[in-house]
Amino acid sequence: MEFTKMHGLGNDFVVVPHLKDVPKKVNQLAIDICDRHFGVGADGLVFILPSDSADVRMRIFNADGSEAEQCGNAIRCVAKYVYDHDIVKKEQLRIETLAGIQFVKLHIESNEDIVSKVEVDMGEPILSGELIPTTFEDDLIVDKTLEIDGVKFKFTGVSMGNPHAVIFVDDAINFDVEKWGPKIETHPLFPKKTNVEFVTVKSDTELDMRVWERGVGQTLACGTGACATGVASVLTGNTSRDVTVHLKGGDLRIVWNEKDNKVYMTGEAKEVFTGKWLGV
Amino acid sequence: MEFTKMHGLGNDFVVVPHLKDVPKKVNQLAIDICDRHFGVGADGLVFILPSDSADVRMRIFNADGSEAEQCGNAIRCVAKYVYDHDIVKKEQLRIETLAGIQFVKLHIESNEDIVSKVEVDMGEPILSGELIPTTFEDDLIVDKTLEIDGVKFKFTGVSMGNPHAVIFVDDAINFDVEKWGPKIETHPLFPKKTNVEFVTVKSDTELDMRVWERGVGQTLACGTGACATGVASVLTGNTSRDVTVHLKGGDLRIVWNEKDNKVYMTGEAKEVFTGKWLGV
Repeated sequence: MEFTKMHGLGNDFVVVPHLKDVPKKVNQLAIDICDRHFGVGADGLVFILPSDSADVRMRIFNADGSEAEQCGNAIRCVAKYVYDHDIVKKEQLRIETLAGIQFVKLHIESNEDIVSKVEVDMGEPILSGELIPTTFEDDLIVDKTLEIDGVKFKFTGVSMGNPHAVIFVDDAINFDVEKWGPKIETHPLFPKKTNVEFVTVKSDTELDMRVWERGVGQTLACGTGACATGVASVLTGNTSRDVTVHLKGGDLRIVWNEKDNKVYMTGEAKEVFTGKWLGV
Repeated sequence: MEFTKMHGLGNDFVVVPHLKDVPKKVNQLAIDICDRHFGVGADGLVFILPSDSADVRMRIFNADGSEAEQCGNAIRCVAKYVYDHDIVKKEQLRIETLAGIQFVKLHIESNEDIVSKVEVDMGEPILSGELIPTTFEDDLIVDKTLEIDGVKFKFTGVSMGNPHAVIFVDDAINFDVEKWGPKIETHPLFPKKTNVEFVTVKSDTELDMRVWERGVGQTLACGTGACATGVASVLTGNTSRDVTVHLKGGDLRIVWNEKDNKVYMTGEAKEVFTGKWLGV
């Protein structure tokens, strides 16, 4: 089975194009291929398939074999592959996922005719306390106090389909994410636990961010986390609606559009190597 | 640059055959290729090169870019590749390394004419306290007491070119390696620190082993650790000279030969996928 290894900000995927459907025993295949010592090694296994309702269809399987609905980093990889390899030669793509049809816009490097960046419509943020969810019932969860081990943090709650607690700190890059991340993730204020972003405002258009992902731990990049951070920065009056978020794995541009209330995320995707899996 | 991803007991390598010499800026290349999110991902980058003095020459670069003298897991991968891909079609190979010429014997699956296992001559163990080194000055370091935080362990010291403290425990598989490994590694009894093996005797010919590698942490497999464990099991009267060591990543057969005093290690090597690195 031939594949291309790609990543979006270090969130990495084995991308398999050109199949008509996913292979049999695909869950076990994902576990085997994603294993970083005995397999190819990746965060997920992604198939680019034909679609009846959109330009292409993607299916993504996590390293534990489960199927994911969607992933903002994986969809950028899929979009780049589809254009660069002439599967669909359009600068706006409709990609079918388990979470519905996603719309993406491609930024083309015209001298090479390859995709440099991809903009993904991440939908509208959910801001009410009940829906994020938190135990607060306010319509906006801005600068609320959270106390752990006698230390007080102020957080802003945003859901991008999954819950985020955004906390502004003096120095996100050197913040002890491993210490505080898991404690905030499991704080009783968050009935479904929460992702946690530690964020430092650099200017009206720039943020540093480190992320603790719910159920995962610290990661190089979290697309929905960057979106939640952009929204929280507007709600708290820290930045404009168009910001660059510096993550460990690279940069994402986040625009919270005033007209349609949607969040647009733009970032790179890269091909690293092509391969042939000997197991199938 | 074309490569084959291989592993020996999960200790995994990007193997590059057919070059005349290592590429320019090879240290940075190793860092880039070994990165598990932005590169191919591996414990090391291995080149199979022509040799003036042996059948082939191998050079191995660690994930941090430094060059390694030798590696018992990598050399099995090299030996398998060399035979299976008809570079040298001999069942005994001489492989030039920075640590000198290494002799390996191949076990061939005759129906497929491919290598199933590789036996590596790991040399004679070093047993004197001063040379291992430990702060004990005895000729043999067997069942010596080591105390940490009020807990007493008995260890047997063996060097296979690098120091090992082998500790027999009731249940190696469930032993808290992460807790005790780093404390023993840095105990003042070991002037150059030490690798630590936690070992349970299953029978006269079988051992379970978990390893804490000096400067690395817990790993899936450690070839010299398995050798040291085989030697320590003989010295303590626990097993015969021919044992199978069950490691997290798989099995190694360790024979401490009475005639030449050398330790022979036999284990598998596997090809996982072939690839083409797009960076070079």
